[in-house]
Amino acid sequence: MAAWGERLAGVRGVLLDISGVLYDGGEGGGAPIAGSVEALARLKRSQLKVRFCTNESQKSRGDLVGMLRRLGFDISEGEVTAPAPATCLILKERGLRPHLLIHDGVRSEFDQIDTSNPNCVVIADAGEGFSYQNMNKAFQVLMELENPVLLSLGKGRYYKETSGLMLDVGPYMKALEYACGIEAEVVGKPSPEFFKSALREMGLEAHQAIMIGDDIMGDVSGAQRCGMRALQVRTGKFSPKCRA
Amino acid sequence: MAAWGERLAGVRGVLLDISGVLYDGGEGGGAPIAGSVEALARLKRSQLKVRFCTNESQKSRGDLVGMLRRLGFDISEGEVTAPAPATCLILKERGLRPHLLIHDGVRSEFDQIDTSNPNCVVIADAGEGFSYQNMNKAFQVLMELENPVLLSLGKGRYYKETSGLMLDVGPYMKALEYACGIEAEVVGKPSPEFFKSALREMGLEAHQAIMIGDDIMGDVSGAQRCGMRALQVRTGKFSPKCRA
Repeated sequence: MAAWGERLAGVRGVLLDISGVLYDGGEGGGAPIAGSVEALARLKRSQLKVRFCTNESQKSRGDLVGMLRRLGFDISEGEVTAPAPATCLILKERGLRPHLLIHDGVRSEFDQIDTSNPNCVVIADAGEGFSYQNMNKAFQVLMELENPVLLSLGKGRYYKETSGLMLDVGPYMKALEYACGIEAEVVGKPSPEFFKSALREMGLEAHQAIMIGDDIMGDVSGAQRCGMRALQVRTGKFSPKCRA
Repeated sequence: MAAWGERLAGVRGVLLDISGVLYDGGEGGGAPIAGSVEALARLKRSQLKVRFCTNESQKSRGDLVGMLRRLGFDISEGEVTAPAPATCLILKERGLRPHLLIHDGVRSEFDQIDTSNPNCVVIADAGEGFSYQNMNKAFQVLMELENPVLLSLGKGRYYKETSGLMLDVGPYMKALEYACGIEAEVVGKPSPEFFKSALREMGLEAHQAIMIGDDIMGDVSGAQRCGMRALQVRTGKFSPKCRA
């Protein structure tokens, strides 16, 4: 294995995943991962540009950043690339009016979006909101559309909370894809468009940045397919069994 | 198109789907499809053998048959091939102790099954039982197994109730497959083993039987792949849009 200095040659910026890298979510807001508050502080003191690239879709960026600041992290809202604001841009550009299957915690991000007479479905990590009734409603909306459009905020399989592994939005996206015979459009990691928007916001090219995450698919493979370097932490959902 | 007589030459038995063919389920037990009570009575008076081949997994066979008899159908429990009893045979043969993600209405079929210290998950059409909490529990059980085994009672995409289209077990099976990176074993249509057991119970070869159903995948394609003839009714979930 090459030395760290060699492997990181030319890196000018770091993209950090949040859940499983900075903290593990859970009851009472979750807990910082040991050493991560200090590691972020060191990164911020370095010459490297730092940006956060998250698929968090249960909370608005404001709530997420407020929670992380209370845990001791040096982070501000403008430093976060998240799927809900990216989705709102797409909805506006394409004249889409969503039926929202989302967590109440992220609903405020969609305050400016017209949700009357829906012509698409937006699905995010709704947690307990993934009831049979809510899933069936989203399914029925899609089945009534001539050209069903399903936007999914990420496609993660699961994440780790302090209480254990939790199903993410991906399995429910797959459920609706199968039920309707359609393919969702993913907004968030590992979509190349999403990584590219984070790089644009940092003012860096892909080869100048490294992505740090706990998800081998969403973070590591996704970033590598965009030409970035990537590093998998051994916290969060990392498991020696699940490397591929 | 060949004449009916020619297309049905050599047919000695009829396998009938139940939901969407005999009746549409829904509040208050559902309603018979117009003409189906009389059509079944005529079939029973004919020289043809008649058997019912259903993926119904919300009700025990006893409850299903009781409900159909109250709606006027000539049907008895011994004439029904259903996935829950077939699953119990598999569990016993393979020494599997299931965690059950199923509807309360079918739980009695599993009364003789050891569910302690589960080493597999059985998923059926749980309806409202497909809560986030129940799905997450099934997911966690699978993730803790060295060799996760997921048995799914059918893999239907949706069915029609009097109130509209309803998600079936298939989408939830796909959700767990994706979350765990595994492939489920389907017990029920369109599994060839399931059709073959129905044929055995009729004492017929595949080429001597015709399957009648409303599901182009589960009923029609599945039966045809087993060498049977098949006929799609235009009731139930049939839609001119969904032929493939």
